[in-house]
Formats: sequence, C-alpha cells, structure tokens
Amino acid sequence: MVTRPSAARPPQASSPRIVLRVDLPSGARVGPGKVALLEAIASSGSISGAGRALRMSYRRAWELVEDMNRYCPAPLVAAMTGGSGGGGARLTEQGASLVAAYRALERTAMNVCRAEVSELAELCGRVPDDCGQ
Amino acid sequence: MVTRPSAARPPQASSPRIVLRVDLPSGARVGPGKVALLEAIASSGSISGAGRALRMSYRRAWELVEDMNRYCPAPLVAAMTGGSGGGGARLTEQGASLVAAYRALERTAMNVCRAEVSELAELCGRVPDDCGQ
Repeated sequence: MVTRPSAARPPQASSPRIVLRVDLPSGARVGPGKVALLEAIASSGSISGAGRALRMSYRRAWELVEDMNRYCPAPLVAAMTGGSGGGGARLTEQGASLVAAYRALERTAMNVCRAEVSELAELCGRVPDDCGQ
Repeated sequence: MVTRPSAARPPQASSPRIVLRVDLPSGARVGPGKVALLEAIASSGSISGAGRALRMSYRRAWELVEDMNRYCPAPLVAAMTGGSGGGGARLTEQGASLVAAYRALERTAMNVCRAEVSELAELCGRVPDDCGQ
C-alpha cells in the first residue's frame, strides 16, 4: 500500500471544511490526495503533468495510480503510449465516476453535518494570538 | 502546526468506513489522530499513558495536546501535577464535548452517505489477487 501524497498543504479555508477518506473492506483507501491526482490527470492529460501540478514526483504519481488500479475492477486511468508528446493519460469512465462519487460524498457530508461542524468550530476555532506575528 | 500522529494503521474494516477531518478557518484541524489521543487520555488518565496506548512518544502526544489547545478558547485537557504517580491528565468538559461532536459527525456522515460510499466500494472495492499470498 502506498502512503498518502505529500502535496503542499492547501490554503487556509475561510469556512469550515470536511476532508474525507473512505476505507473500504478491500483495503482500498480513497481520500483527497488520490482524488486530486485523478482530477489533475483529467485536466493536464498526463500523469507527469498531474504530478507537476501537485508537486509530486512522476514516480509517486504512478505509484498512486497503480495502487488505485489494484483495487478497481476496471482501470481508473488509461495511459496512452507513444505519439509526439510521449503519450498521455486520461480518466476512464470509472475514474470519472470515482471522482464524482467522492465529491458528491463531500458535498453531502458538509450539507448534513453543519451542526456538528459548528460545534467543533466553537470548541476549537479560536485564532491563536500569535497568528500573523 | 504539528503534523498528524503516526499511529499504527488500524486493522482493516469489515465494512466501509468514513474517516473525517475538519479544517477550521482558525487553522485548527480536528481529525482521527487527535480525537483518538483525547479518548486515550480519558481512558488512561494521563498523556504518557495515552501516548503508550497509541504507540506515540510522550513528546509527540504533548505537542498534539498543545496544538489543540492553541485553537481552543478553553483547554481540552487538564494536567494534574504532583502526587505519587507524578500527576495525570483528564479531559475537560470542552475536551469531552469535542470528542462527542467528532464522533457524532462520523456517525451522521456514515448514515447519510451510504449511497456515495457504496458507489465508491463498487468502483474501487476489489480485493487484489495477491492478497494473502
């Protein structure tokens, strides 16, 4: 199993945000790093481009794609070899569906869990005195 | 900001599980590692005992407690100094409330997101051929 991507910490949100990971009985773990990688592959058209966009090595990006494919009945990413650009990659229908399901999960969780998130924000949402100093 | 605890990977679940982290605008991040630490402090009665239970150094456990307290209007953990056992620690009312709010958030998310989780399990829930070999 490959560990999570060490992408840079995202900028601080202006409102509370739920970050989700789903652990499946198969051993697969679907979380923000892998989903961001799939989205970056879709937008850049290659695994190397996605890695660059996420400040991740090509090797690491490949490992994450391989790790996801191990657990999927159908590949999530289709690599296209050859061509003047040295090939590229795109999401398969299953890859796109996985991204959509994960983002839907995030939205649903955020919509229904506002009360619990507000309580957490009240208990642990103080801006430290030394911020910005 | 202190990074996440490097506790051992939990045993594989027999059903899908949502693991949540809440990122607050203050910069606080409330996730499974910190909540497990608070729970371990409550059950062991000390930060060192909690650290041992989670295979985390005393220093690391202290850093996580300090990190949480930075963002909280009231402390989550009360340390008791002195005594024959060298003092101990317990959760404050706020600490217990934070644990309860986080666990409620988990339950709510799991209850309302079954459809999305099932879709992820379908797309990425194959047990790899080499499992157990």
